[in-house]
Amino acid sequence: MTPLDVTDVVAVRRDLHAHPELGFTEIRTAARVETALRELGWRVRSGADVVDPAGHPGLPPAAVLDAAAERARAEGVPADQVARLSGGRTAVVADLDGERPGPRIALRFDMDALPIAEVDDPGHVPSRDGFASRHPGVMHACGHDGHVAVGLALAAALSSRDFPGSVRLLFQPAEEGVRGAEPMVAAGVTGGVDVLVAAHLAFGLPSGVLAPSATELIATSKHLARFTGRQAHAAKAPEQGRNALLAAATAALNLHALPPFAGAVTRVNVGRLEAGVAANVIAGAAELAFETRADSADVAAELARRADVVVKAAAQMYETGVDLVRTGHATAAHTDPSVAAALTAAADGLAQVRATHPLGASDDASLLMRAVQEAGGVAGYAIVGSDTPGPPHSPRFDVDDAVLPVAVTWLERAVKGGIW
Amino acid sequence: MTPLDVTDVVAVRRDLHAHPELGFTEIRTAARVETALRELGWRVRSGADVVDPAGHPGLPPAAVLDAAAERARAEGVPADQVARLSGGRTAVVADLDGERPGPRIALRFDMDALPIAEVDDPGHVPSRDGFASRHPGVMHACGHDGHVAVGLALAAALSSRDFPGSVRLLFQPAEEGVRGAEPMVAAGVTGGVDVLVAAHLAFGLPSGVLAPSATELIATSKHLARFTGRQAHAAKAPEQGRNALLAAATAALNLHALPPFAGAVTRVNVGRLEAGVAANVIAGAAELAFETRADSADVAAELARRADVVVKAAAQMYETGVDLVRTGHATAAHTDPSVAAALTAAADGLAQVRATHPLGASDDASLLMRAVQEAGGVAGYAIVGSDTPGPPHSPRFDVDDAVLPVAVTWLERAVKGGIW
Amino acid sequence: MTPLDVTDVVAVRRDLHAHPELGFTEIRTAARVETALRELGWRVRSGADVVDPAGHPGLPPAAVLDAAAERARAEGVPADQVARLSGGRTAVVADLDGERPGPRIALRFDMDALPIAEVDDPGHVPSRDGFASRHPGVMHACGHDGHVAVGLALAAALSSRDFPGSVRLLFQPAEEGVRGAEPMVAAGVTGGVDVLVAAHLAFGLPSGVLAPSATELIATSKHLARFTGRQAHAAKAPEQGRNALLAAATAALNLHALPPFAGAVTRVNVGRLEAGVAANVIAGAAELAFETRADSADVAAELARRADVVVKAAAQMYETGVDLVRTGHATAAHTDPSVAAALTAAADGLAQVRATHPLGASDDASLLMRAVQEAGGVAGYAIVGSDTPGPPHSPRFDVDDAVLPVAVTWLERAVKGGIW
Amino acid sequence: MTPLDVTDVVAVRRDLHAHPELGFTEIRTAARVETALRELGWRVRSGADVVDPAGHPGLPPAAVLDAAAERARAEGVPADQVARLSGGRTAVVADLDGERPGPRIALRFDMDALPIAEVDDPGHVPSRDGFASRHPGVMHACGHDGHVAVGLALAAALSSRDFPGSVRLLFQPAEEGVRGAEPMVAAGVTGGVDVLVAAHLAFGLPSGVLAPSATELIATSKHLARFTGRQAHAAKAPEQGRNALLAAATAALNLHALPPFAGAVTRVNVGRLEAGVAANVIAGAAELAFETRADSADVAAELARRADVVVKAAAQMYETGVDLVRTGHATAAHTDPSVAAALTAAADGLAQVRATHPLGASDDASLLMRAVQEAGGVAGYAIVGSDTPGPPHSPRFDVDDAVLPVAVTWLERAVKGGIW
Repeated sequence: MTPLDVTDVVAVRRDLHAHPELGFTEIRTAARVETALRELGWRVRSGADVVDPAGHPGLPPAAVLDAAAERARAEGVPADQVARLSGGRTAVVADLDGERPGPRIALRFDMDALPIAEVDDPGHVPSRDGFASRHPGVMHACGHDGHVAVGLALAAALSSRDFPGSVRLLFQPAEEGVRGAEPMVAAGVTGGVDVLVAAHLAFGLPSGVLAPSATELIATSKHLARFTGRQAHAAKAPEQGRNALLAAATAALNLHALPPFAGAVTRVNVGRLEAGVAANVIAGAAELAFETRADSADVAAELARRADVVVKAAAQMYETGVDLVRTGHATAAHTDPSVAAALTAAADGLAQVRATHPLGASDDASLLMRAVQEAGGVAGYAIVGSDTPGPPHSPRFDVDDAVLPVAVTWLERAVKGGIW
Repeated sequence: MTPLDVTDVVAVRRDLHAHPELGFTEIRTAARVETALRELGWRVRSGADVVDPAGHPGLPPAAVLDAAAERARAEGVPADQVARLSGGRTAVVADLDGERPGPRIALRFDMDALPIAEVDDPGHVPSRDGFASRHPGVMHACGHDGHVAVGLALAAALSSRDFPGSVRLLFQPAEEGVRGAEPMVAAGVTGGVDVLVAAHLAFGLPSGVLAPSATELIATSKHLARFTGRQAHAAKAPEQGRNALLAAATAALNLHALPPFAGAVTRVNVGRLEAGVAANVIAGAAELAFETRADSADVAAELARRADVVVKAAAQMYETGVDLVRTGHATAAHTDPSVAAALTAAADGLAQVRATHPLGASDDASLLMRAVQEAGGVAGYAIVGSDTPGPPHSPRFDVDDAVLPVAVTWLERAVKGGIW
Repeated sequence: MTPLDVTDVVAVRRDLHAHPELGFTEIRTAARVETALRELGWRVRSGADVVDPAGHPGLPPAAVLDAAAERARAEGVPADQVARLSGGRTAVVADLDGERPGPRIALRFDMDALPIAEVDDPGHVPSRDGFASRHPGVMHACGHDGHVAVGLALAAALSSRDFPGSVRLLFQPAEEGVRGAEPMVAAGVTGGVDVLVAAHLAFGLPSGVLAPSATELIATSKHLARFTGRQAHAAKAPEQGRNALLAAATAALNLHALPPFAGAVTRVNVGRLEAGVAANVIAGAAELAFETRADSADVAAELARRADVVVKAAAQMYETGVDLVRTGHATAAHTDPSVAAALTAAADGLAQVRATHPLGASDDASLLMRAVQEAGGVAGYAIVGSDTPGPPHSPRFDVDDAVLPVAVTWLERAVKGGIW
Repeated sequence: MTPLDVTDVVAVRRDLHAHPELGFTEIRTAARVETALRELGWRVRSGADVVDPAGHPGLPPAAVLDAAAERARAEGVPADQVARLSGGRTAVVADLDGERPGPRIALRFDMDALPIAEVDDPGHVPSRDGFASRHPGVMHACGHDGHVAVGLALAAALSSRDFPGSVRLLFQPAEEGVRGAEPMVAAGVTGGVDVLVAAHLAFGLPSGVLAPSATELIATSKHLARFTGRQAHAAKAPEQGRNALLAAATAALNLHALPPFAGAVTRVNVGRLEAGVAANVIAGAAELAFETRADSADVAAELARRADVVVKAAAQMYETGVDLVRTGHATAAHTDPSVAAALTAAADGLAQVRATHPLGASDDASLLMRAVQEAGGVAGYAIVGSDTPGPPHSPRFDVDDAVLPVAVTWLERAVKGGIW
């Protein structure tokens, strides 16, 4: 594994794009981050010191975690690093003190990819330029590759310590499924933080636009329902089966039929359904992964309650058991005016500024933001516009490399400005 | 791999039960069969000479076939045998001439297992006696382990050539999914056969009962529907998705709502549904495996047509594409009176005889039977009763070892009787 | 209302066909029957003496019963007859003693029509010949018009008393929905009956064929589910609604997805669904009428139990209430051999005899048959074949007038033969 | 019918509340309006001069229109008025010129009720005070009774002509189902109008609040789908049926599963489903009334297109025909700033003013507004807050009588102020 030149933000982004890793398995990514930050002189903590997802219902099964460790080793990550970062402990936190007093500013960069198979055609830049995903069925389809590259370039830009206060960089696992922030908060990574900023690429804004203050960062819960029915021969004894596939299919359709709520933004999606083994066997088991979202905590709670009712009634309808767990969550969040003001000032002359930008989406950065805000600090969620050839979470998604240096400069200026 | 003592029918059955292999991947099983038959002096053909499923829509993907070959090697099958039997070419056909003239009698033994995880508790005999499946998620839940053991013991019993005519043993892959018989027929294995008998264990009859003539051996088609929608971010751009998961769920529910047909036995089952990747992505792809069955060819054709209509309308409803293939099929079949008579005579004094037994199930032995019958021969489908602790295709299924020698004797007597 | 000439079986049938009446509202029909039987010298009982459906969950609402009475009066039925026969008390029972000793033979004739709008085109005989239904939306689409005409012509043929034993004619209301036989049994109309015969026209047999012994007369339950949700403005407050329409639609789909039972004939049908008031209001109420059938009492009970589970789970899924009642039922039944023998003898030379005929349908004559059989008598269910231009319960159904005299002769011979 | 004292706005409202009439059948209401306005000296046009809904797909069937005319006569409306206003021609338009020059101001008042059965309990004011609906199953559950009363009281208040310009009062039928405005626009009622104001009671605002400028007045289409399948006997010939009930149920569920659109407010509701005739008949016909809504014309068009796709695919799935018509529609609309300013000024000191109020609902006043705006005029949609014991379109809805005089004063001041 060639060491990264973190000042070449485009090259770093492309290296990461070619090696996407799913939530809690970002071992190669975290290892590269950890190594680079140490070389830049930052105080680095990683693994169990900054995240412990053991027992988290959103943690992948042991076999998946083991396979990830195996692959990381095969891709050249030293065994001691793999050991430290495996088991879902893929967070990295780095601190650096500025040369003069000031607040402690934390910046969040999420690292994980999605279980999507990237397209392969000449019109797709990663295909054309040879940095498409080398991990079949896994893809950076939400720009987190760019986030990590920006975070490392920022670390380089700040390594001269020419800024007030101190800076903490939070490299977070498993933002997809909103799983990674919660155990980082539990590990205390927001302790002593005065200002927290999370920035996200693209999100509907084109290249050349910066939005210092996103709105409609909405609450979400991710759920996993496991239906347990009874297998039987589909022709000889259909009445002896308890059909978990039909229970899950009925739940899926009726979850999508949950009503909108007046005056609120709500979302329900059943994103994965797996049931049964073969055409001639009544399906004895089924699994459903779904999410609910809302732009207020009250509506989010009521929507999650109703989803629960639908799933349990579907199980009852087919006389199956069902086990229902919440695998991840994020809350609704807002950007504090002082953070918006500082980011607006820092954007001056750099790009066009969009004063506000409604997201209608979720990020568990919201949990980090809330932790800081509840402790008396301020927080913000900003967008760095980027043209994308396909929508986020689609096989044609990609970010515009040209915006990466802009993002670095914007955050660098904001840190150095120090006017939160 | 210790050689089998094929005269110990129970030991052979238990060895096979511990090493179940899915359709078209029965390499270890076919290798054991081939080796044993050669040692007994039978003329043996195997692999491409007797089956060529290349291009068959029910053939597993190359990766699965390769993994099966790899496992067979790991379990001790010699490399040349693996090479001959891999790629789905897992059929074995053996001939032996009797010492006096007479008809050519073929007997069919199917070899494959099911994608079902066997129970593991002390009350389950395979657990108790240590021959439970060593292949996770795969299980002999339909008695084919017993069929192969009976076939080999019969080969031993006949090796003295003390019978009229000649005998052909057909060891068939992939009866589950009704896929294996068709390419064996295409390879000509029924050529010159005067009488064909297929026998199946259990099928609703208890130990101590033999049924020489099953009825309601029904026609079936197995189908695979692949829906192609469009992935999108479930919160940011739900309207840009084309939801393949909901298309498949709607198809599943409405396939099960297809009406019964007056005066006919019909069955529809959606046995497997896999869709989507994660809770926060609109599912862009889905796969549905289902079957239709009927006890007459006309009703079977109409039912399959209607299933097709439902699947295509579900795709249209969600504006997804859909690819629909028939992965396997069997026809309706009946036992010729002369075969029933010969088997009835052979059962005399051996067990209680049930003159007829309605199955309400399918077996692609029907395709072999039809090939023989259309060429002027006769055929029959017989049941060897066996107590079973759970229904067929369920995780608790097992056959009663005590009936295996009875089955061997029954078939041996029938062959030696020669009165077809 | 011109008096009927009951010896003109075709004219009577056509008069009744033109004036179809739904179950428990057969006032005009019962009045015509009562009047004609009295004129023929039979001892006639009617109304509350022979049926009392008060409180029966399958009784139409008072407004419907009142409208029926009003229409009967408008069509010329005398007020005292209307009074006697209204309120659902539309049964007529008539007795006549033969001139020599013998058993008491009861024959059942059902009188009600269906809520189906008859087709109106020149190819439809009732349209062509001017006896199509004059009651919009109601139609004799199951041949009960023919049954009543045959019953009356039989009464005329037997009025000379030239037969052994005694005869009781049972004119039954509300066979559709299997509601009318139960309260007749409760009123004691099977008391003292030695032999009971019910005959039905058509049922899949062509003109010129008689079947003395139907099989697969299957058990059924009719159910009414009333869902109570909460209305709300569909745009302003969708989340405040509790959607009874979707609860009912989900119940309907999943009731149809109930599995078949191995070795049994089963049927499920949701035949009527009414929900909601207007496009812009979340539906607060819904009503579902459905039936379950099976050819054995055990399977029928299990199937009805599962239907119950589905309906209640659908209500739970949408957080609505649900009220579920059984509005009618029939049991499985068989024809006693002695009855089959007598009917077979009586058919000699009259038409082609089909020894047995599987129905796969239900008739609450089965409750009368069971009452007689449990009291030590015998019973039978016979079919008089008739060509029909459309299937039963379809808008094109009609019976073949030519078979009506054959039916009369057959039953007359059987009664006179007296060899049960 | 006692003449109305239109200055007693509460009494008029209660008279109308007790006699609710569905869209296009508001004969009694329109007659009272017409009579009162003539008595006040306004120039009145009504019937075919101001609306002609003949051929409109949302017009009720002739039998319903006839029954409405019959009831109006029975309730005392003179025959000539009934004749003029029947056949759906229930609009009334009245003009009055002020005593000095100025713009022509039109005000819209809708008159129709909903097919909802009003609650009957002592806590419901209409029950308590004896003005609950006397028309079973019909109810003023959206405040239009109040609108008409306010319109008439305003007519009285303006009859002194002490205002600039001229005033046109538009009493509109069939706002529910958004059907009545279109034929009024077609009849030219907006000709020469400079300013159009529509005011609605309640809509989520409490008593004591006035909102001069509603937002999120969203586009909507109302649709009627009629499925034509094939009836058949549910037990004897289920396969011969084509199940329109299941087609409609599948359409209903999947219409509700249509996705939300990012950045838009969307609504889908299936509000009425009627299918089939009886439990033992496969349903041959079904009817579905549904609506789609969106806050932009583009999204509304796409949503309606997708609804169309779902309905047609459901028909295809069950091999039924389907006839799909748009029975009504409204567009998205906004209040012009000058109208908002005038209404704000007029509210001064009268009540608390809410500068803006998002509706998330539809009103075909939007078609009148668009007609005026496209001809160079201005328009506005205002809300008069009112406490309500239940949500709109629910059986407990009622308006607060106390706000009616406030509404009259507000509009009177706005007209007299004349500063549009």
